Amino acid sequence: MSEQTDFEISHQVPYYECDASGHLTIGMLFRLLILVSEEHSTAQKVGPDRVKALGGGWVIIDYDGTINRLPKRGETAVFGTRVAAYNRFFVVRDFWVKDAAGTVQVKVKGLFAFMNLTSRKIATIPTALSEPFQLPESRRLPKVARPTAQAVDDQWQASDYRVRFFDIDLNNHVNNACYFDWLLDPLGSDFLLYHRLVGLKIKYDHEVRAGATVTSTFRREGAVTYHQVQSQDGVAAEAEFTWEEC
Amino acid sequence: MSEQTDFEISHQVPYYECDASGHLTIGMLFRLLILVSEEHSTAQKVGPDRVKALGGGWVIIDYDGTINRLPKRGETAVFGTRVAAYNRFFVVRDFWVKDAAGTVQVKVKGLFAFMNLTSRKIATIPTALSEPFQLPESRRLPKVARPTAQAVDDQWQASDYRVRFFDIDLNNHVNNACYFDWLLDPLGSDFLLYHRLVGLKIKYDHEVRAGATVTSTFRREGAVTYHQVQSQDGVAAEAEFTWEEC
Repeated sequence: MSEQTDFEISHQVPYYECDASGHLTIGMLFRLLILVSEEHSTAQKVGPDRVKALGGGWVIIDYDGTINRLPKRGETAVFGTRVAAYNRFFVVRDFWVKDAAGTVQVKVKGLFAFMNLTSRKIATIPTALSEPFQLPESRRLPKVARPTAQAVDDQWQASDYRVRFFDIDLNNHVNNACYFDWLLDPLGSDFLLYHRLVGLKIKYDHEVRAGATVTSTFRREGAVTYHQVQSQDGVAAEAEFTWEEC
Repeated sequence: MSEQTDFEISHQVPYYECDASGHLTIGMLFRLLILVSEEHSTAQKVGPDRVKALGGGWVIIDYDGTINRLPKRGETAVFGTRVAAYNRFFVVRDFWVKDAAGTVQVKVKGLFAFMNLTSRKIATIPTALSEPFQLPESRRLPKVARPTAQAVDDQWQASDYRVRFFDIDLNNHVNNACYFDWLLDPLGSDFLLYHRLVGLKIKYDHEVRAGATVTSTFRREGAVTYHQVQSQDGVAAEAEFTWEEC
């Protein structure tokens, strides 16, 4: 059995992928991680078109990551991924971002499932998609830690966000990276400009539809913030972020 | 006098720069045009840092453009610019987007002024910045057509947008490209998915600040939509868009 290969792309960060601090935004980080994973799959001839032809699509269950430093405007960084493990229903992907010196500055694990697009339910991963992984099926998948369960009460601060036309992607869904903008924006610029995200856990529960309005709530407990995004269909996402002052 | 050279960059459009139709969004088109103009200036050693060191910044007054076809997801297009003309206070830039066959698919003219960052007023363009244009000063600048003046009344449809943390750029301003999202979103997905923007005129009046809420209003007259974005400081931008069914 040959080893699963790493797949990497080099990307120079333009000004419009950065926030007011001049660093890549968290939403853009995840857009790029999905891009690298799609390009990885395409290089293995199991890209989005092939997945669609098999009647399904990859859906993200949760991410768990740590950030040392995000690339800055104009910086060229390397975005990489590999399949860490999989079983009949789930795939765990490792993601990383390296700076120009080759030092890993961001590490993320993501748990994905294969969804049948007709039934909208999780389905067995077709062999045609798992063969290119060149890995044996795992008995136990590595853990992708989830946010600590929280009971939201009226002490949590709430902000409403209407889904906009440009949040909707080619599959007529809200892009998963948009959730980060909703999750983080309520913290406010005074907090966001003077704190650096160093750890994140995010779990996706329900899709948010075009035309919906979501409520993003959070509470802070020292260096940790807990978040929940709700739509009229229920909880759409939960997150736990760890911060350092900067 | 040597001729002003064209400056071009090649860019492959990732999925996250596209809307639900799979084409580059208008907001992203303008982010890329500003990127190419900044890289052009940087190549001539009068990039953003040098401009800032001279106590000022370039501000956009208005854009006038026509679109035949916008690049699609995965497509590599060439984004180009040249300085068309300038005088003591203003610069007219030509922008274009070419497809892989070299056919020009988008043409935009932009009128820029140099603003003194201390007084926040239009100032004479420093010679250090105009020298690299390698062009004589113009007596008459080419026209960059503005939207037809409109009186907004309560027949116009209005939608509110709160400025979000991730709309704010490194200069602590709302990025000018965000205006397109506010201008277009009120048209709704039924309109936007079945119409193609073929002509645009946009005039910027006032900066929108962090924390503001803007009201985006529009009215439609056949194939043309007229738009105004207002903040509490007054009119922030006006636009006139021409559409074709698709």
